[in-house]
Amino acid sequence: MKDIYPASPEWRVSRWFNSEAPLSLGALRGKVVMVSAFQMLCPGCVSESLPQALRVREAFSEGDLAVVGLHTVFEHHEAMTPTSLAAFLHEYRITIPVGVDEANPCDPIPVTMQAYAMRGTPTTLLFDRSGRLRRNVFGHIPDLRLAADIMALVGETNLSGGSATTNESAVCTPEDCSDQTT
Amino acid sequence: MKDIYPASPEWRVSRWFNSEAPLSLGALRGKVVMVSAFQMLCPGCVSESLPQALRVREAFSEGDLAVVGLHTVFEHHEAMTPTSLAAFLHEYRITIPVGVDEANPCDPIPVTMQAYAMRGTPTTLLFDRSGRLRRNVFGHIPDLRLAADIMALVGETNLSGGSATTNESAVCTPEDCSDQTT
Amino acid sequence: MKDIYPASPEWRVSRWFNSEAPLSLGALRGKVVMVSAFQMLCPGCVSESLPQALRVREAFSEGDLAVVGLHTVFEHHEAMTPTSLAAFLHEYRITIPVGVDEANPCDPIPVTMQAYAMRGTPTTLLFDRSGRLRRNVFGHIPDLRLAADIMALVGETNLSGGSATTNESAVCTPEDCSDQTT
Amino acid sequence: MKDIYPASPEWRVSRWFNSEAPLSLGALRGKVVMVSAFQMLCPGCVSESLPQALRVREAFSEGDLAVVGLHTVFEHHEAMTPTSLAAFLHEYRITIPVGVDEANPCDPIPVTMQAYAMRGTPTTLLFDRSGRLRRNVFGHIPDLRLAADIMALVGETNLSGGSATTNESAVCTPEDCSDQTT
Repeated sequence: MKDIYPASPEWRVSRWFNSEAPLSLGALRGKVVMVSAFQMLCPGCVSESLPQALRVREAFSEGDLAVVGLHTVFEHHEAMTPTSLAAFLHEYRITIPVGVDEANPCDPIPVTMQAYAMRGTPTTLLFDRSGRLRRNVFGHIPDLRLAADIMALVGETNLSGGSATTNESAVCTPEDCSDQTT
Repeated sequence: MKDIYPASPEWRVSRWFNSEAPLSLGALRGKVVMVSAFQMLCPGCVSESLPQALRVREAFSEGDLAVVGLHTVFEHHEAMTPTSLAAFLHEYRITIPVGVDEANPCDPIPVTMQAYAMRGTPTTLLFDRSGRLRRNVFGHIPDLRLAADIMALVGETNLSGGSATTNESAVCTPEDCSDQTT
Repeated sequence: MKDIYPASPEWRVSRWFNSEAPLSLGALRGKVVMVSAFQMLCPGCVSESLPQALRVREAFSEGDLAVVGLHTVFEHHEAMTPTSLAAFLHEYRITIPVGVDEANPCDPIPVTMQAYAMRGTPTTLLFDRSGRLRRNVFGHIPDLRLAADIMALVGETNLSGGSATTNESAVCTPEDCSDQTT
Repeated sequence: MKDIYPASPEWRVSRWFNSEAPLSLGALRGKVVMVSAFQMLCPGCVSESLPQALRVREAFSEGDLAVVGLHTVFEHHEAMTPTSLAAFLHEYRITIPVGVDEANPCDPIPVTMQAYAMRGTPTTLLFDRSGRLRRNVFGHIPDLRLAADIMALVGETNLSGGSATTNESAVCTPEDCSDQTT
């Protein structure tokens, strides 16, 4: 049987928080993986997508689903350093593993953000149990939609199938930041 | 293979709103069915469970899931007549089919509410594609949990399995009404 | 000194709830009076203006401010009878005095609603300490604005002055009902 | 007539944002002044007190009321530098004047925070038209209460009177940070 999804690139992380060891997409094979890409100064991430990631962590079993934060800083780099991020994670009680997307010395957009063609923050990636990207959504996803998508992947037994979709409903892009996400 | 869920009793409805013909559990066989039992003067129903039922209706396909309201009046019967319900459904723009649970002449608790041993309102019932009860939840269910449960049932191909659970987090019971559901 | 506000008509109430004796504008002379006109099946009243009236009751002293509900039924009369209202007030724990605006046998609009030219529900009336109407607002009023208006009236020592204004931001009118008040 | 409020110390600010010139309590004499003391990584400040300060700015006239933010960093100093604050103010579209409370080289608590014995963030200070402190509230203040307090001060014509009160309902203190303010 032929895989109908292209292989997904491994994420590139320069530093991990809330994780004793580095995490990799490869090592999480067998679980569904949700990546919540954010910036600590992105209003929509702080008020919506990060609280949602914590709710998702509570609602699904660790055996079925890994939930990972990715700090994809593409603006105000000097204000969102790992030092600032550490304080932010502490104050907002964000306890899921968070990786810092590797900076690109030649581009404000970091490496993983670029590799997945993310259009801004928040972005949510969903990978199936075989590590293939199945959702790449920019902006807010209602809880009902997100949970249904995750559960569909959790229930899959074959390692391929379905179709990837991309929605959007805005917040921070390399051009501009907006929290009008209602 | 033996069915491990008991057969579910058909609901008993004295009048339908928002439906050209009466609906029955039997006729909906093949779809997952969500029943949202409510009272029009139950604060938690008005502010939480009915808006959630409308969101669920939007989020899932009609081919996979039927969403049905059930007006299970167990108190203030004189204030929650079908006439009042009609005005309520109009003003709150509730467009899903709603059945009026059949009154029991000998008991304030209506027939279907009794048959399913519902403890108050709101109560959410989930039936699998073969019409067997799989969830009977009194009180608020977070969107994430509800969508995951629905999607798990949508994905089932066999007509039996799993285990029914009952949670709760309050609102109206035959003894008392409370909207402190946060 | 001449009064620059016209005398305000007394409200006409056919029945009181949550009050041992009938209330009148005349008898409340000396206090600022806030009237919250509502219908029990008006979504914006249930979700916004009635909870706000309860918050106002908590925030200001009874000696300075009277807060009165007025059930101004102009539609679905058969669904919003005093019997239904009693159940509603009980379930929603509305403890401020509530009067039923007197029905007009020749018009769906009740008497007080007509006398004050209210455009729908919710409507908020503010009277100064001398019983003269100073605000007549149709639709939602932000807490900040409402509290500032009340406090300005509480602080007035003279019995006349200022100018009445009328704002609006929707909900139920004799033509239509809408809860898009955000 | 004797002033019954003690003179209030001038704030000490090392840098201003959103203001062409430095602001001082002395120069604002004649207006009521609201100071919203915050930290950019204090969850309760970001979700509640800063949005409230912006609402207050909209609701009251600039002639009657000055609204000033004060960045009182007492923890994570390295993560809440003026550089980070600038990015924060931009992303959260905070347009009121914001001063950076002067650091104390011998103490993590900055100078103005110390001078006013603030217990953490958010803290709201209200000064009357004569520049005397009349409210010093730690934690969340409901809009109704805040607007009533402001309006009472706006309406004062004498330059003394009343009594200062201090309420609280938590968030960040030098000991700990908590966003459970509901």
